[in-house]
Amino acid sequence: MDPLVTAVQTFARRYRLFQSGDAIIVGVSGGPDSLCLLHVLQQLSLQLTVAHLHHGLRGVDADADERFVADAARELGLPYIEGRADVRALAAREGWSLEEAARLARYAFLRDTAREAGACVIAVGHNADDQAETVLMHFLRGSGVDGLRGMLPRTPLADYRLISGEAEEASELSDTPLWLVRPLLQTDRDRIAGYCAAHGLQPRYDQSNEDTSFYRNRLRHELIPILKNYNPAIQEVLAHTAEALAGDAETLQGQTAQAWDAVALPGGPDEIIFDLESWRAASIGLQRALLREAVYRLRRSLRDLGWEHVERAVWLAREGETGQAATLTGGLALELGYDRLRIAPEDAPWSVAAPQIAEALPLTVPGVTPLPGGWRIVIEAADTSDARPGEGDDPWQAWLGAGATGPVLTLRPRQPGDRFQPQGMGGHSMKLNEYMINAKIPRDARAHWPLLVGRGGIAWVCGLRVDERAAVTPASTRVWRVTIERLYAAHDPAETRQGEARAPGPPVDFLRGD
Amino acid sequence: MDPLVTAVQTFARRYRLFQSGDAIIVGVSGGPDSLCLLHVLQQLSLQLTVAHLHHGLRGVDADADERFVADAARELGLPYIEGRADVRALAAREGWSLEEAARLARYAFLRDTAREAGACVIAVGHNADDQAETVLMHFLRGSGVDGLRGMLPRTPLADYRLISGEAEEASELSDTPLWLVRPLLQTDRDRIAGYCAAHGLQPRYDQSNEDTSFYRNRLRHELIPILKNYNPAIQEVLAHTAEALAGDAETLQGQTAQAWDAVALPGGPDEIIFDLESWRAASIGLQRALLREAVYRLRRSLRDLGWEHVERAVWLAREGETGQAATLTGGLALELGYDRLRIAPEDAPWSVAAPQIAEALPLTVPGVTPLPGGWRIVIEAADTSDARPGEGDDPWQAWLGAGATGPVLTLRPRQPGDRFQPQGMGGHSMKLNEYMINAKIPRDARAHWPLLVGRGGIAWVCGLRVDERAAVTPASTRVWRVTIERLYAAHDPAETRQGEARAPGPPVDFLRGD
Repeated sequence: MDPLVTAVQTFARRYRLFQSGDAIIVGVSGGPDSLCLLHVLQQLSLQLTVAHLHHGLRGVDADADERFVADAARELGLPYIEGRADVRALAAREGWSLEEAARLARYAFLRDTAREAGACVIAVGHNADDQAETVLMHFLRGSGVDGLRGMLPRTPLADYRLISGEAEEASELSDTPLWLVRPLLQTDRDRIAGYCAAHGLQPRYDQSNEDTSFYRNRLRHELIPILKNYNPAIQEVLAHTAEALAGDAETLQGQTAQAWDAVALPGGPDEIIFDLESWRAASIGLQRALLREAVYRLRRSLRDLGWEHVERAVWLAREGETGQAATLTGGLALELGYDRLRIAPEDAPWSVAAPQIAEALPLTVPGVTPLPGGWRIVIEAADTSDARPGEGDDPWQAWLGAGATGPVLTLRPRQPGDRFQPQGMGGHSMKLNEYMINAKIPRDARAHWPLLVGRGGIAWVCGLRVDERAAVTPASTRVWRVTIERLYAAHDPAETRQGEARAPGPPVDFLRGD
Repeated sequence: MDPLVTAVQTFARRYRLFQSGDAIIVGVSGGPDSLCLLHVLQQLSLQLTVAHLHHGLRGVDADADERFVADAARELGLPYIEGRADVRALAAREGWSLEEAARLARYAFLRDTAREAGACVIAVGHNADDQAETVLMHFLRGSGVDGLRGMLPRTPLADYRLISGEAEEASELSDTPLWLVRPLLQTDRDRIAGYCAAHGLQPRYDQSNEDTSFYRNRLRHELIPILKNYNPAIQEVLAHTAEALAGDAETLQGQTAQAWDAVALPGGPDEIIFDLESWRAASIGLQRALLREAVYRLRRSLRDLGWEHVERAVWLAREGETGQAATLTGGLALELGYDRLRIAPEDAPWSVAAPQIAEALPLTVPGVTPLPGGWRIVIEAADTSDARPGEGDDPWQAWLGAGATGPVLTLRPRQPGDRFQPQGMGGHSMKLNEYMINAKIPRDARAHWPLLVGRGGIAWVCGLRVDERAAVTPASTRVWRVTIERLYAAHDPAETRQGEARAPGPPVDFLRGD
């Protein structure tokens, strides 16, 4: 067995690329990388299907490539699927470069082919030199660990933005995730050429790979030779950098997910809310990662989210004051609330994590009354000795003197003329509206803020403060324990993480497939 | 106030470089960066001392620099300290490049100056272009996040390897850590030149900065201009990369420290022992980081620890079998034990985490008997109802039937002909040596392994298994609870982390100071 086959086998085992017997779509252009890949995989007891996309770009050359791949598949006795794309039209329609359009068309085709063939693994021929070029490209354009780690040996295809929002659709088509694997990612171009020669493979060469008007080709043919003057082993070094950073990126993703759990609060469907105190306790690196993750979750893209956006927002969130905002991308902004941060469309009203009460609602006492928006209110009769007013820090639980409130309790919105005596302020009576402003209830939440009302008037401005007159005193004989609970959140960040563990951060970007 | 002063003030506050009133040593070469730095810092209510090192390298030019800096300090009314080094001799003696020797001599001088002056902050003039060059240099040489993050705005000086092992000494000289700060790290060279011009500063220019036989100067004068053809904003981009990765590096260090706590076991003074199962549960990225950290702790250097060393060792530890080893650097190797990994000098015998018993030792029953090597054995009389044999997973605690063992207990090494009936094996009797082999006690630990012996013979092969005949049974009326404890470990990894939080990973390397 050729040593390359053994090397690919080890690599595949280590990175769990596939297992014996797996059905695999092999993307074959007809060039040396994919032809070598096909030949190597054929020796590994896999069920292969050859797939080739005609990009509609290079005229008779592309036609010849297509025939060549079809012939190669037939000679090997493998099923063959071909597709056609009009990459030029796609690029024009979407405003993409030809390279980008070709890449995305290719992945869409491979994905569809895999779905049809019932395969869940797609193998492509990226090699170690491609990897070095990818790392270099990200380095020159400016990138964090997510870009500098280059391409991954194995990555879910759903992580790739395909054609206009298709990624989400695709993942709904099937429960089985599609994996993109790159078995030759540690094999350099010379070794692949050597393998082809040794095994009598005569690949086609794509002339467009020489065209230095493509950025990647300029790196390959111009810049990498220059960099070899500074380090002759530059390609090897960059491939190692990618591998090392891929491991670090995984660690960072784990930390970001953990930090997310610690800071994210329930919010509306088009907003992410962070608890400001927990956010500020996180390191600057995690703050940047959380911000990027928030933008990614809201927009499924980090496009145009530059360094300056992130820095401005992160520092504002660290040092800014209530009411300040920083523009992000995709129409989003970060806004600083009193005790929370929000990433949401600019100028969107703050959603409020409180039940909204449009009209008076009689409550079951004692008992449970459902409230709009997935909330409920639970009222329990308790002995005075059970009362722990002020204990615990759940603002949605209150202890009230039952003698003061009486047994008829109502939840209602505010009314003109409402006044309130906040407990602990020496019986000082103030306008309810004034109290709400002081308590930083956002303007548009005040009108429907829940007020618990009993015999003596407002007993509890829910979530905030008990009225002095309704509070439990040493003289109280019976008390109400009132709890407002959210049964489900309109938007639970935890849901996003269920199922297939999606990496926080953007899909890895790369520009040239095989 | 010049906007640069405000910018430096903001930067200093964000990265906690210094506070108003701090005593600061400013390293001044006389070039534009350090002269600008001095001028800016003078406007920030700090107690400055100017320090200049004559490197003994550039003859009359260097003499003139020295006079220039002394004059500048005098004009500003600041204390001035100068030093002289013979960098050429240092380079020759230590086998370093001139650049490296100059850098290390400079930091040693600044450190000593700070100690003398009672300052704990040293400011140097590295700018954003220096940072970009540093990142580029690490990128070309091959580096993980630790290198690609470039220079830090603030870093403990003790983290720098100074002259031959001086770093450790230095940190013992004083309880106060010395901080190296770089207030101009986000200011580019053009802005510094502009500031100098605007404020009538006439810095000296070091001709050796033009000498492209120095690697860094080649990057600055040759490669960066080329890279600008690929991204005109390359310097800015690299400075941002550094800043982003510095945050990520901090997160990764935190994770590495946490992982260390989960996997490190007590070991000898020149070895690090990891629990194999916990190690294998860690991600590959953390495994690499732990391995590098282990080498760094043992050798205070990661010099010559290449990618191949790390990968070979990491994959061996993941997939290898007991007894296999992989060579690292500094004479170290990683060895795979039965349930542990060891990083230690090649061919060093395994130290054993058990007391070593050379001759029979009568024990105080009940009571405490000290054992060699910082261990002790505690024997307590207990009621049968207290006995929890098999509960908990401390192998160094055993419950024995006092009726079976009697009150005279001894700890002794093995003797020829010793036999043992391991509890739970149906009374099967076996040769003790055979048992020890099965239990994977290393060969050289078997001879002095502690055996607890009572009336009926071996009652407990300590740390491993109680003898069937000495075990607690329903018929037991009195029991011994025997505990072997280590009072101090020869090498406690936790100690290394006390005091000033030392970052895991190597000191940041950089080649050219100001």
